[in-house]
Amino acid sequence: MIVAMQEKATEEQIDFVIDAMVDAGVGVHRTTGASQTILAGVGPTASVDLSKFELLPGVLHVHRISSPYKLAGRGFRPEGTVVEFRNGVKVGNERVVVMAGPCSIESHDQIFETAARVKAAGGSFLRGGAFKPRSSPYAFQGMGISGLELMREAADAHGLLVVSEVMEISQIESMLPYVDLLQVGARNMQNFNLLRELGEVRRPVMLKRGIAATIEELLLSAEYLLAGGNYDVILCERGIRTFETYTRNTMDISAIPVVKKLSHLPIVGDPSHATGRRDKVPAMARATVAAGGDGLLIEVHPNPDRALSDGAQSLFPEQFVTLMDTLRVIASAVERTI
Amino acid sequence: MIVAMQEKATEEQIDFVIDAMVDAGVGVHRTTGASQTILAGVGPTASVDLSKFELLPGVLHVHRISSPYKLAGRGFRPEGTVVEFRNGVKVGNERVVVMAGPCSIESHDQIFETAARVKAAGGSFLRGGAFKPRSSPYAFQGMGISGLELMREAADAHGLLVVSEVMEISQIESMLPYVDLLQVGARNMQNFNLLRELGEVRRPVMLKRGIAATIEELLLSAEYLLAGGNYDVILCERGIRTFETYTRNTMDISAIPVVKKLSHLPIVGDPSHATGRRDKVPAMARATVAAGGDGLLIEVHPNPDRALSDGAQSLFPEQFVTLMDTLRVIASAVERTI
Amino acid sequence: MIVAMQEKATEEQIDFVIDAMVDAGVGVHRTTGASQTILAGVGPTASVDLSKFELLPGVLHVHRISSPYKLAGRGFRPEGTVVEFRNGVKVGNERVVVMAGPCSIESHDQIFETAARVKAAGGSFLRGGAFKPRSSPYAFQGMGISGLELMREAADAHGLLVVSEVMEISQIESMLPYVDLLQVGARNMQNFNLLRELGEVRRPVMLKRGIAATIEELLLSAEYLLAGGNYDVILCERGIRTFETYTRNTMDISAIPVVKKLSHLPIVGDPSHATGRRDKVPAMARATVAAGGDGLLIEVHPNPDRALSDGAQSLFPEQFVTLMDTLRVIASAVERTI
Amino acid sequence: MIVAMQEKATEEQIDFVIDAMVDAGVGVHRTTGASQTILAGVGPTASVDLSKFELLPGVLHVHRISSPYKLAGRGFRPEGTVVEFRNGVKVGNERVVVMAGPCSIESHDQIFETAARVKAAGGSFLRGGAFKPRSSPYAFQGMGISGLELMREAADAHGLLVVSEVMEISQIESMLPYVDLLQVGARNMQNFNLLRELGEVRRPVMLKRGIAATIEELLLSAEYLLAGGNYDVILCERGIRTFETYTRNTMDISAIPVVKKLSHLPIVGDPSHATGRRDKVPAMARATVAAGGDGLLIEVHPNPDRALSDGAQSLFPEQFVTLMDTLRVIASAVERTI
Repeated sequence: MIVAMQEKATEEQIDFVIDAMVDAGVGVHRTTGASQTILAGVGPTASVDLSKFELLPGVLHVHRISSPYKLAGRGFRPEGTVVEFRNGVKVGNERVVVMAGPCSIESHDQIFETAARVKAAGGSFLRGGAFKPRSSPYAFQGMGISGLELMREAADAHGLLVVSEVMEISQIESMLPYVDLLQVGARNMQNFNLLRELGEVRRPVMLKRGIAATIEELLLSAEYLLAGGNYDVILCERGIRTFETYTRNTMDISAIPVVKKLSHLPIVGDPSHATGRRDKVPAMARATVAAGGDGLLIEVHPNPDRALSDGAQSLFPEQFVTLMDTLRVIASAVERTI
Repeated sequence: MIVAMQEKATEEQIDFVIDAMVDAGVGVHRTTGASQTILAGVGPTASVDLSKFELLPGVLHVHRISSPYKLAGRGFRPEGTVVEFRNGVKVGNERVVVMAGPCSIESHDQIFETAARVKAAGGSFLRGGAFKPRSSPYAFQGMGISGLELMREAADAHGLLVVSEVMEISQIESMLPYVDLLQVGARNMQNFNLLRELGEVRRPVMLKRGIAATIEELLLSAEYLLAGGNYDVILCERGIRTFETYTRNTMDISAIPVVKKLSHLPIVGDPSHATGRRDKVPAMARATVAAGGDGLLIEVHPNPDRALSDGAQSLFPEQFVTLMDTLRVIASAVERTI
Repeated sequence: MIVAMQEKATEEQIDFVIDAMVDAGVGVHRTTGASQTILAGVGPTASVDLSKFELLPGVLHVHRISSPYKLAGRGFRPEGTVVEFRNGVKVGNERVVVMAGPCSIESHDQIFETAARVKAAGGSFLRGGAFKPRSSPYAFQGMGISGLELMREAADAHGLLVVSEVMEISQIESMLPYVDLLQVGARNMQNFNLLRELGEVRRPVMLKRGIAATIEELLLSAEYLLAGGNYDVILCERGIRTFETYTRNTMDISAIPVVKKLSHLPIVGDPSHATGRRDKVPAMARATVAAGGDGLLIEVHPNPDRALSDGAQSLFPEQFVTLMDTLRVIASAVERTI
Repeated sequence: MIVAMQEKATEEQIDFVIDAMVDAGVGVHRTTGASQTILAGVGPTASVDLSKFELLPGVLHVHRISSPYKLAGRGFRPEGTVVEFRNGVKVGNERVVVMAGPCSIESHDQIFETAARVKAAGGSFLRGGAFKPRSSPYAFQGMGISGLELMREAADAHGLLVVSEVMEISQIESMLPYVDLLQVGARNMQNFNLLRELGEVRRPVMLKRGIAATIEELLLSAEYLLAGGNYDVILCERGIRTFETYTRNTMDISAIPVVKKLSHLPIVGDPSHATGRRDKVPAMARATVAAGGDGLLIEVHPNPDRALSDGAQSLFPEQFVTLMDTLRVIASAVERTI
């Protein structure tokens, strides 16, 4: 940590800050400039509450120097993490992995037809929600575990993996028989109790960025998972909230190269939730791959106009096929396959 | 709902949209202008997914006309809701209610001393966290139920009510013996399962606005509680995330008069979390009362420099006393007491 | 325009609103639903100040139905605008056009070397600033017209076009001999006096989106140019301000497909200013082309480490060459060339 | 400046950074921690482009330690600036100063009636726009200099001062005979050429915060004025752009105490533009005074329903009188008068 003193800070004030740093278990190096004194603190600063120092008399600013996350940082695994699934599919490798399916599992026919379409177009994962957190209390809330059973069957019938969202600690156990990749939704990105539990589970986790979360906060949430011993973590960019309202959220494509620099974890993009509009999904899916994303999460529905939730952002199966063809060319431009 | 067609929409496109509206159970009134056709849908539109219509050919925009919330709207209770507690304290009345205490309950001495200070200065509620969701996995996580026991004792000893945060459904039952007002934190504002459970409980709930939540979304979350039959709901403004980083969040003081117009529910302000800095708390507490807030949630600690969490935003007891004196004058300006 | 009345609005309130609409020159169609009355206004509503109606008693919401822009709307030129330059280069066509060069023109050698590099790599425009608005009063402020002379010579020597920023009305006249495309910077997007003057000029204009401007506001600013008779307008996405601070701004890639739907004007991307960091520029340039952008504005400097301004976001010439090769493949995936 | 090296930075990388710092004219102090090396740069770092260092191999973060502004910083004038006008009115003193009037000057009667009302209610300044930058090209654009003449007469007739917005360098000279306080609008906050010119003028300037500007950027813009020798600068908070759309902008009340700490310049609030709605203006005006603002800028119109611009945010004269009475009580609570 670095404490920059105000230009007119007195020796007394400086001594008081130094004492406070030492009290907090931090070693202090002092640099006295012509107009300003700087105190560099070294040692176990990760657990120090820096904001306390901000308020001490004579202090201008306090900066954290070391990253607040350790295990999620690039330095921990410079070569990058590759998450491998039981059928050999890998995320974080040179192949861009596509996860597709409906917002909600609705019926046997719906999920089996979708599975066939996803597989045929080149997807690796079948996605679908069993528990739907809806912002209106009057909307469809999901099929629950029976939906997961259907999705597992449909996925197995076509050699696909299953990804689905876990919303509460109490659901984890019951989902494990059906799900290959446990998704943590944007609203739960800072549900630290849930993260801690998932850190104990030996099943890959996909952590979505919250709509008001910085990249640093996303990595700090990943740290919870890694700290628990679960290193199979995939991050997901799905749009942040900004003043622009034409799209539901603003997909932060630049988060992809930023995460690639700061962390060793793979990152995928979810253009369906980011835009909320089917007609914007292909452009943002292409941008995700072009920017270096490791995969895509896309909503596809055999009949979007009849979907019980989020139909407006689901692709028609034919649109998905066309998109996949385009993505293959873009992947080749960035030395990836799909 | 209103569907505005594009200027060049064809009769076929218009007919297709009308059919889709009728299919969705909505009655249609058509207005044909010189350059543009407008379709007004009446009937049970609250449960219709408007975004589907946005994508139909020839459609320019779709607008929801009725509020997506009903029970939380001003029209439901034009006279305003007053939440009454067992000792007669009322929130939403002419008296501005102050809730104060430490971020975390840390020890017997800490919470008893705080309670004495809060009561002496004119506070009505003792606040304190038992379960602390911390963004770093390496920080203090709270005392749990034993902390609540201490807080209950301390509150009773001084005639105060108790407010504390509930973070999970599983905690509700165990908190009821100790807590008069169950707080839902900003991160849980859209934890709809938790809200549904709290709607069933007969205990007042304070719902904090999420840092990325619009006022409409806050009211929609309140709707979950009301729809469950729990009408004792208090809203709380605690800052939203913006591009300004000097303060932790930007406290949206204008949310207070906006909520007063749109809803019948009381609203209080939390300047401690909104600013994250002790030296900004008094100014924002004063602004809250001046803008018409029904109460305040303020962090006070007998020794902020030694607090195990959020010390930098906790007031010293003497600062709290001074602030209360100032607030009394401001309250009188807006025809309130404190 | 649509006026939605509150559920409990009285007949008197409704009549008062109808009178106010008629006074404003608007024809009114009334729809009386079971619980709510809706008033649709048709006629010359573009010049009506809707916010006045919002405050009338009994009014719930007022919606603008027609776009506030006309000439910039897709309907005005469904086939799309192609801006053609004197040497035959076209923007808005199937070829993606690249504009590259230093932030500031610094010297003869700098700009001539850059021109050679830009041309060799396949660029069409040489960019460079003559007047630099710097946020610190103590920084380099640009070479002025003598810089433009140098850039014109360098561009002509290599068959390139010239794009440079105009910051004030008084500069327009003196820039015309040197510049093929007049750039309006993000800070001037709503300098309506400047826009009005540029609407009178017969020279193409590139209008950058302001960092706090919605897409609708960008199109409304373009409307000023078109209303003056200048139809050769190119839009530019260069990042918006959000809470994420790792990148200087958040590049809103989704603005590209959105503008393509709403307007007939071409849109290019500026990844250099959007990210502010050289190491993020290639990824965002690739995303721009993948998302359907009509061109790119990229900072390239023969020696970024010695640049007098914005060196950290300028590519090294070799990086630019590599990037162009990648972009060619991506362009082919979206049926474009480069 | 502080350069924090990555944990695995090599000695070569560290030496390279030290050389680059020395090249930039900065003296270097090195602190070698157990896991990380920190380089503190002292000397003339205000003019150094820190972002260049961010990109050097082995660098984790670069922090600016000293404020980028000097003259606008609190340390330059710890006692605070008081701007005194020719009739003895002072801004920044214990008296809260109120500036009120219409958005646009429209006619003799309108401005004279407003002046009488403003004076009677206790205002000190008459405000009104002569040049109106409107976002739609089809709206009323202002009366120009003849409007200023009218406003000057009206102000003199009632012993008021005049504040009006200057939008371009070319307007300054012609406005000086009529205007006591030159307002720089939010859109021009970073029009550095205009600021530089105004720095040379000997007339007080009110600088409004841009809707996407941080407090630091506001102070840096003020620095331009101060650097030119004009120390009579008043800042103005008028709302920032956030994701909340119910109010036009989100008024950042906390900017008031923040500016008071960081700078010696007075700061006033403009609740009319911040909210865009008459019914929210009183609450936000009260909050401004309660938070410690030095003044208010409020739109008042004798007949808001007939105003040619911004009628929806203008108070009726009677509302203004009532508000002023309330503000007097609030001012007393914070040891001010009005």
